[in-house]
Amino acid sequence: MSDKQRLTAGELAPQVGGKLIGQKGLVLNGLADLENAGQGDVAYVEEEKFFETARASRASCLLVPEGFVSGMPAEADKVFIEVARPKLAFTRAASLLYPPKQHEPGIHPTAVISPSADIALTAFIGPHAVVGEYALVGAGSRVEAGVVIGANVTIGDECVVHPNATLYDGVAIGDRVILHAGVCLGADGFGYVRDDMGYHKFPQIGTVVIEDDVELGAHTCVDRAALGRTRIGRGSKLDNLVHVGHNCDIGERVVIAAQTGISGSVVIEDDAIIGGQVGFGDHTRVLKGAVIGSKAGILPGKIVRPGVWWGIPIQPLEAYKRQNAHLGRLPQMREELKELRGRMQALEDQLKDRE
Amino acid sequence: MSDKQRLTAGELAPQVGGKLIGQKGLVLNGLADLENAGQGDVAYVEEEKFFETARASRASCLLVPEGFVSGMPAEADKVFIEVARPKLAFTRAASLLYPPKQHEPGIHPTAVISPSADIALTAFIGPHAVVGEYALVGAGSRVEAGVVIGANVTIGDECVVHPNATLYDGVAIGDRVILHAGVCLGADGFGYVRDDMGYHKFPQIGTVVIEDDVELGAHTCVDRAALGRTRIGRGSKLDNLVHVGHNCDIGERVVIAAQTGISGSVVIEDDAIIGGQVGFGDHTRVLKGAVIGSKAGILPGKIVRPGVWWGIPIQPLEAYKRQNAHLGRLPQMREELKELRGRMQALEDQLKDRE
Amino acid sequence: MSDKQRLTAGELAPQVGGKLIGQKGLVLNGLADLENAGQGDVAYVEEEKFFETARASRASCLLVPEGFVSGMPAEADKVFIEVARPKLAFTRAASLLYPPKQHEPGIHPTAVISPSADIALTAFIGPHAVVGEYALVGAGSRVEAGVVIGANVTIGDECVVHPNATLYDGVAIGDRVILHAGVCLGADGFGYVRDDMGYHKFPQIGTVVIEDDVELGAHTCVDRAALGRTRIGRGSKLDNLVHVGHNCDIGERVVIAAQTGISGSVVIEDDAIIGGQVGFGDHTRVLKGAVIGSKAGILPGKIVRPGVWWGIPIQPLEAYKRQNAHLGRLPQMREELKELRGRMQALEDQLKDRE
Repeated sequence: MSDKQRLTAGELAPQVGGKLIGQKGLVLNGLADLENAGQGDVAYVEEEKFFETARASRASCLLVPEGFVSGMPAEADKVFIEVARPKLAFTRAASLLYPPKQHEPGIHPTAVISPSADIALTAFIGPHAVVGEYALVGAGSRVEAGVVIGANVTIGDECVVHPNATLYDGVAIGDRVILHAGVCLGADGFGYVRDDMGYHKFPQIGTVVIEDDVELGAHTCVDRAALGRTRIGRGSKLDNLVHVGHNCDIGERVVIAAQTGISGSVVIEDDAIIGGQVGFGDHTRVLKGAVIGSKAGILPGKIVRPGVWWGIPIQPLEAYKRQNAHLGRLPQMREELKELRGRMQALEDQLKDRE
Repeated sequence: MSDKQRLTAGELAPQVGGKLIGQKGLVLNGLADLENAGQGDVAYVEEEKFFETARASRASCLLVPEGFVSGMPAEADKVFIEVARPKLAFTRAASLLYPPKQHEPGIHPTAVISPSADIALTAFIGPHAVVGEYALVGAGSRVEAGVVIGANVTIGDECVVHPNATLYDGVAIGDRVILHAGVCLGADGFGYVRDDMGYHKFPQIGTVVIEDDVELGAHTCVDRAALGRTRIGRGSKLDNLVHVGHNCDIGERVVIAAQTGISGSVVIEDDAIIGGQVGFGDHTRVLKGAVIGSKAGILPGKIVRPGVWWGIPIQPLEAYKRQNAHLGRLPQMREELKELRGRMQALEDQLKDRE
Repeated sequence: MSDKQRLTAGELAPQVGGKLIGQKGLVLNGLADLENAGQGDVAYVEEEKFFETARASRASCLLVPEGFVSGMPAEADKVFIEVARPKLAFTRAASLLYPPKQHEPGIHPTAVISPSADIALTAFIGPHAVVGEYALVGAGSRVEAGVVIGANVTIGDECVVHPNATLYDGVAIGDRVILHAGVCLGADGFGYVRDDMGYHKFPQIGTVVIEDDVELGAHTCVDRAALGRTRIGRGSKLDNLVHVGHNCDIGERVVIAAQTGISGSVVIEDDAIIGGQVGFGDHTRVLKGAVIGSKAGILPGKIVRPGVWWGIPIQPLEAYKRQNAHLGRLPQMREELKELRGRMQALEDQLKDRE
């Protein structure tokens, strides 16, 4: 959330790379969806099935696909901006109308900062935050209230660490990283060795590296590596309550929906898309561009090739659908089997009679 | 937890709308289950299968169904209270014997309160809590240690916000709401638009509204709406570690067990009952009174009608059971098929011989 | 994480109960896996399939199974230590080379400690931590920044409570317990009684007991008992984001992987091994030594006997595999059925022609 700005249609159009149809001076100061938009609001339409709704919308400004406007009557209090990708243009409009909240840089007097920590002058450290020894916080970064940052942690520039997140010692995050409330980076991985007495902790002395432009949802946990590092690659986005085990290597631009769990030493290559509540056995490898449906389960050591995967254990979506169709036909198969038995018996009886 | 009170049987009976059998003056000062109850304890029995256990219980006071006592011998140190619904009466007894912990109202000196925030005189703000600009905290509400409340947040009367919860800017909660430790309200929804460069954040500028009498379990996350609001309706109860995505609309008196995940724009109507670890695809709609079993999976856009649903993807419970029964018979079907092939071959051979 | 120590090979060998082959004076100051190890590092090899990699490793010291070295050429800058269980010896080496981080004992000036709390002189209480009335913190225990400890909580000796964890009133933990960031102990169990008005809270007045040597992962939640106690037995290890409902009784040396959810009143006996994302219906009982695969689902009230279990609902692993094999053969069964129908028809026609 942030404070709203105001903008004229004539200012907005070039910023979203679009062509303005209507009066330049119309003032815009909000965003809304087609149905709830009112005066001053920018809305967008991309899919043809919503064109009708769009035409009825009370939005002051509609971001529309190229060619949308031709033949539409002009209206005094409504403008159109034709763009190649309206939804993308809408996200750009959002960043102008709702710019990220600005904080006065500075360190809140209740924050506890180690004398050896290095906090950029333009960074903000909120109330009751804690920054450990030799930690670095980069330019323009915001560390919100109640965040605990361990020793030797590195935070890049323009990051936002939301309240009550915890970064254990030695964790490193890049630039423009967003960590939502309660995110936990660098807790010990789950590894033990058993003997007669019980379980002994396998060393968990590696680290966690979060690259630039990553966003992690609330309460998502990324464990430190046993040895080496656990990595989330540049531009990846993880939803709430995701678990990433020790030594995982998540590539760039990977999307992972809520509550998915990733066991130790899993590799997910670039551009994979992972649904919610998926479970990965350890040492799985997901190849570049694979798509895994929600609630899927992947057995340890499996290699997941490009394509769309579904089910427990996963199979190609088409195979999954076929199997489900077969499952649905089980009662009918059973009936057919019964019928065949009857006919078989009749034939056998008939032949026996003839003997 | 709270401090125990003491009460006589004669005081308790009218408070639970029951009929006392036994001495009024017996002192009661605790609650227990039938097996562990001892002197001074109130216990209850509702189901007939536990009547035997109840008769053997050492509880000083038993809340029992009407008619339970007839013919039972009186005991000097034991009373019965006959009520229409013993378990419900037990919850009432609990609120008398273990009244909610009282805090002296006031703001702990270590809390950081924005000068523009409005805190009721009877509210309590705990150590190291943070209350942002223009936030409101209503009468009798308790904001525990380490809670972070953003700007423009509204908290009604008689709420309890347990330690280390985070309420992002602009979130609104009603009266008598209980948020357990680590609850996160108003983190950004999970929405992005992709182009060649990677993922761009779709605007997440809506809000979260939690209505009266809602209780949310530890670490449950409710994301803010992209545009508009995410809502949890009056009297709904969510267990621990639940994820509610952006723009969801959860109705009144909805119950959701632990670790269930609800994608964006899902509508759950009043009085639905949802098990644990259920996954909802986006834009699902659950109609009033539907019941969904634990671990179920619902495909995006699905409409779930009243009735009991189970499985991945969900189907009516009866169909699910039938399918499972069919699955169990697969080995037998396979045997039958094999047997039929044999008999078929025999018949064919027999006929060929005759030619 | 902790500060590295240095050790000679001659010092290490007796500490891990092994036989040194090579020079005693070689200095060791790190741990690594076979592939990444370099000068000064200790690595281990246990399984024969990695022997080749081990021989090529640049580790200064290899912990190896007995008999591994015979016939290998001696090297000036490399030693071997033969031990009965190399991986176990490696964990022992880790505790020497990376001893637990030492904190100066003491209470941070920003911590808020009730005057009636009893903190051992050798304990450490971090910044912004809160310790409630009559709470006890034992010798050598570390309560990190932002942790909130309620009234009447008992923490044993040599525990580590990581940042932003919350312990509600009355919770008790034993010695050498590790609670990772955000752990929540003692939130109200999820129990309500419904009447016409909606849901009323069933009393949640019991407690939580965590025995010695337990480790709980980040954001794991253990709810207080309704009446009585919820227990995690000695030496059990729970991963991140696990949910343990009210009144559960988890035995000793039980291992539970991430995101598993355990409903109320479940009993898990000693030495059970539970995968990730498993769901337990209430009143389940898991007998000693059972192993439950990831993503399994267990129906309420089920008794799970020793052996390996898998699936939703669970079945013995062998049965699960057979069922999956049958499922995979469904398309073929369907083909066979179709073929049989054809042959049946042909036979019937043939016999009819003869009449």
